[in-house]
Amino acid sequence: MATELFEKQKTIDLRKKHIGPSCKVFFSHDPIKIVRARGQYMYNEKDEKYLDCINNVAHVGHSHPAVVSAGFKQMELLNTNSRFLHDNLVQYAQRLQATLPDKLSVCYFVNSGSEANDLALRLARQYTGHKDIITLDNAYHGHVSSLIEISPYKYKQLADKEQNPHVHVALSPDVYRGKYREDHSDPATAYADNVKDIIDKAHGNGHKIAAFIAESLQSCGGQVIPPAGYFQKVAQHVRKAGGIFIADEVQVGFGRVGTHFWAFQLQGDDFVPDIVTMGKPIGNGHPMSCVVTTREVAEGFTSSGMEYFNTFGGNPVSCAIGMAVLDVIEQENLQSNALDVGTYLTELLEQQKGKHPLVGDIRGRGLFVGVELVKDRAKRTPATAEAQDVIYRLKEQRILLSADGPHRNVLKFKPPMCFSKEDAELAVEKIDQILTELETVLGMGLSSTAVSENGSSKRKVSSEENGHHAHANGKGHYSQPPTAKSSKRIRT
Amino acid sequence: MATELFEKQKTIDLRKKHIGPSCKVFFSHDPIKIVRARGQYMYNEKDEKYLDCINNVAHVGHSHPAVVSAGFKQMELLNTNSRFLHDNLVQYAQRLQATLPDKLSVCYFVNSGSEANDLALRLARQYTGHKDIITLDNAYHGHVSSLIEISPYKYKQLADKEQNPHVHVALSPDVYRGKYREDHSDPATAYADNVKDIIDKAHGNGHKIAAFIAESLQSCGGQVIPPAGYFQKVAQHVRKAGGIFIADEVQVGFGRVGTHFWAFQLQGDDFVPDIVTMGKPIGNGHPMSCVVTTREVAEGFTSSGMEYFNTFGGNPVSCAIGMAVLDVIEQENLQSNALDVGTYLTELLEQQKGKHPLVGDIRGRGLFVGVELVKDRAKRTPATAEAQDVIYRLKEQRILLSADGPHRNVLKFKPPMCFSKEDAELAVEKIDQILTELETVLGMGLSSTAVSENGSSKRKVSSEENGHHAHANGKGHYSQPPTAKSSKRIRT
Repeated sequence: MATELFEKQKTIDLRKKHIGPSCKVFFSHDPIKIVRARGQYMYNEKDEKYLDCINNVAHVGHSHPAVVSAGFKQMELLNTNSRFLHDNLVQYAQRLQATLPDKLSVCYFVNSGSEANDLALRLARQYTGHKDIITLDNAYHGHVSSLIEISPYKYKQLADKEQNPHVHVALSPDVYRGKYREDHSDPATAYADNVKDIIDKAHGNGHKIAAFIAESLQSCGGQVIPPAGYFQKVAQHVRKAGGIFIADEVQVGFGRVGTHFWAFQLQGDDFVPDIVTMGKPIGNGHPMSCVVTTREVAEGFTSSGMEYFNTFGGNPVSCAIGMAVLDVIEQENLQSNALDVGTYLTELLEQQKGKHPLVGDIRGRGLFVGVELVKDRAKRTPATAEAQDVIYRLKEQRILLSADGPHRNVLKFKPPMCFSKEDAELAVEKIDQILTELETVLGMGLSSTAVSENGSSKRKVSSEENGHHAHANGKGHYSQPPTAKSSKRIRT
Repeated sequence: MATELFEKQKTIDLRKKHIGPSCKVFFSHDPIKIVRARGQYMYNEKDEKYLDCINNVAHVGHSHPAVVSAGFKQMELLNTNSRFLHDNLVQYAQRLQATLPDKLSVCYFVNSGSEANDLALRLARQYTGHKDIITLDNAYHGHVSSLIEISPYKYKQLADKEQNPHVHVALSPDVYRGKYREDHSDPATAYADNVKDIIDKAHGNGHKIAAFIAESLQSCGGQVIPPAGYFQKVAQHVRKAGGIFIADEVQVGFGRVGTHFWAFQLQGDDFVPDIVTMGKPIGNGHPMSCVVTTREVAEGFTSSGMEYFNTFGGNPVSCAIGMAVLDVIEQENLQSNALDVGTYLTELLEQQKGKHPLVGDIRGRGLFVGVELVKDRAKRTPATAEAQDVIYRLKEQRILLSADGPHRNVLKFKPPMCFSKEDAELAVEKIDQILTELETVLGMGLSSTAVSENGSSKRKVSSEENGHHAHANGKGHYSQPPTAKSSKRIRT
């Protein structure tokens, strides 16, 4: 068992003193101190166990011994830059390539999803000679300057937001809450046509499209699953305009969706992006990521005459760790576990939808699942405060879940891939209890699903968002109306 | 001894197939395959030993056991994001802070020097409300989009370079080759006045300065040591304009300069930057870095309303490794070793200057040393091809050195900090031999230092630059005239 160096309060005080105040903790009124973790479980300083339903970085399980051992062995031997030949680099590239369509054959190793997406933009702009980027509404692609610009999820938070004229925002292909819904005859075409309209308008203004970028499934954007065929149609429009298609798999890749290794493959075998970016799960927590593209795009980038060098990217340790992650996914059948457990979890949640009026929509692929809470099923009124209350109460039960999306009312499941059916049962059982309690307080029943906004706002509602801000108490006593502050979002 | 998975040629072939062609190797005609390293030595697949004079990332020595062990122990226990409280994060921040002036007290942990410098720009722009950045000529600050824009070292390579109107390039404060030289009565003021002129001109055009950014010692820019007092004067001008001062210590920090822990401290105790960025040596090769700033700037960043989250930044493993690096620097007296050995190395090189007309200038601080080669001491004509030949021939002698600067004629010493006097003697002895051979071929002697450019260009001169491009043979037989291609630069 791990020991604690400082008393918890001292840790909090030092954090306030020395860590940037923009860097937020979970559950700020009573943040959690975690000292060790294993598999899908995390342990606090009192050795109390938490079930982790949100950490898509600890992909094959926290501190997986095979991954740790691979990292250790390589660290002992050599950790240097990619200006020297090393077998790990090429072997790892070869193995990643084997998971992808043939034409995605050239890798650039970098250190984070942000570095990967930034490089993807550089590749696209250099290859096409164009400048403009089309991004989706509510998208988040990373924290460096060039990515904040294409992340409405982030820049909409700014008081003095300034939209880059070379960035265009397309409709999020959300068939539950978006413009074209499940009752539309062809939402894939309708959403793709919106991209086409944007291209036409940009052309009219003398702009040229370098790329369309989207997460294969929008994560922060609210666990959105685009209708199949949407990417093919968008790619057609974008390529016709001389642009390319970037699939951001930073949050959703590496077998999480269960049926496929990459989430873009959900769209069908006839869809191949021009660039795929990877991140979070790739090294099970080790800082690394990758951009994979076609020979054509890679050659186009070279033609600029500018070399690309990344100090840490592709070092032998990162590559050894990356290969160990691929090994574990394979040896422990984690992709098929994601499918089995994810399907089971979705079924259990669907049953909750039958019981609880607060549950508006259940959507998921493998162990990427969203539960959208609403105050009114007909109007689909986001149950923002309720979602925050659920995650706070779950925390009291030692279950870690988060809420996200533009209205922060979507409970996000994206646990380590070793998540079990028993874990799913436990989480859903607790959610069931909490929703029952909440609905009792709110006077909601399936017979009274059309609870009006006025009706529920009579009660004082917590403004918490993933526990960011002060919460009166953990027992679900509502204390404050939603404030402007509560519109800040969190990404895990 | 490490084993090889692939034959060297197979490694090369796989690299060509799967790694972005913009990612260059050292010595492309016969790249080196390194399989293990320890201290300041690297070993190829035949277990042949190379002396590493260039790796400022393996700061406390390659694969230092204390650093490896710290990483391993923490990896076994926990590696997660900074949304949970963890003692490593706050303890490490506290320890870094203790190396800095008091007012630099707030840390943001990120994954690379590029992420650090990009965040520094975001902090500066948000805090000041201004947009424009002043950078130095020949500067390199990183590979993400926002940093290519402020890196003349990189963007000058582009065929279709497009200067961002919000970026202004100041003179490099190079007293050997710059506008104001060692014979100038006050180069610090003269170079700072150039920054003032830029500010005035920007104001005249309605632009406002967010920040001045400079490496505390320019590395890729040619191992440039700004005259003392220059930063103070620049800071005065920039702050008067409402901007802030960013000191980039990514290449030169952590005791390398010997007399001080941070290179900006060479300017005098009265100088404190508003932001310091760290990188390469911070984790001895582990992908991590840090931005440290003042409480004021940090609060200004928060006021935007936008949270900052970095998935891997500040994880417990990175922090454990960072602390182990600080421990080793202290326990092994590496800062004082850098001073002793660096001084000794500089003395040995000064002796070479007395012997070899090719040596135009020796400059250094601790284990950051530059040897500028010239074909003509009076005209200071850059000996570009000769510098490349020196590093190629050193490679044959199993000594790794690189050449950089705008004319790629500056030999760069920036070895692991455990570099010894014996290592210095060996490297200088080999350089002596090589320069003697070269000068014989070139017909140069100290009595004939004014060898004309025509005189030397009668010979076919190698176009190699750090071995990037094909080299006819390793024995120093000049094969090709310099080509446009040879103007590409390399950063190690």
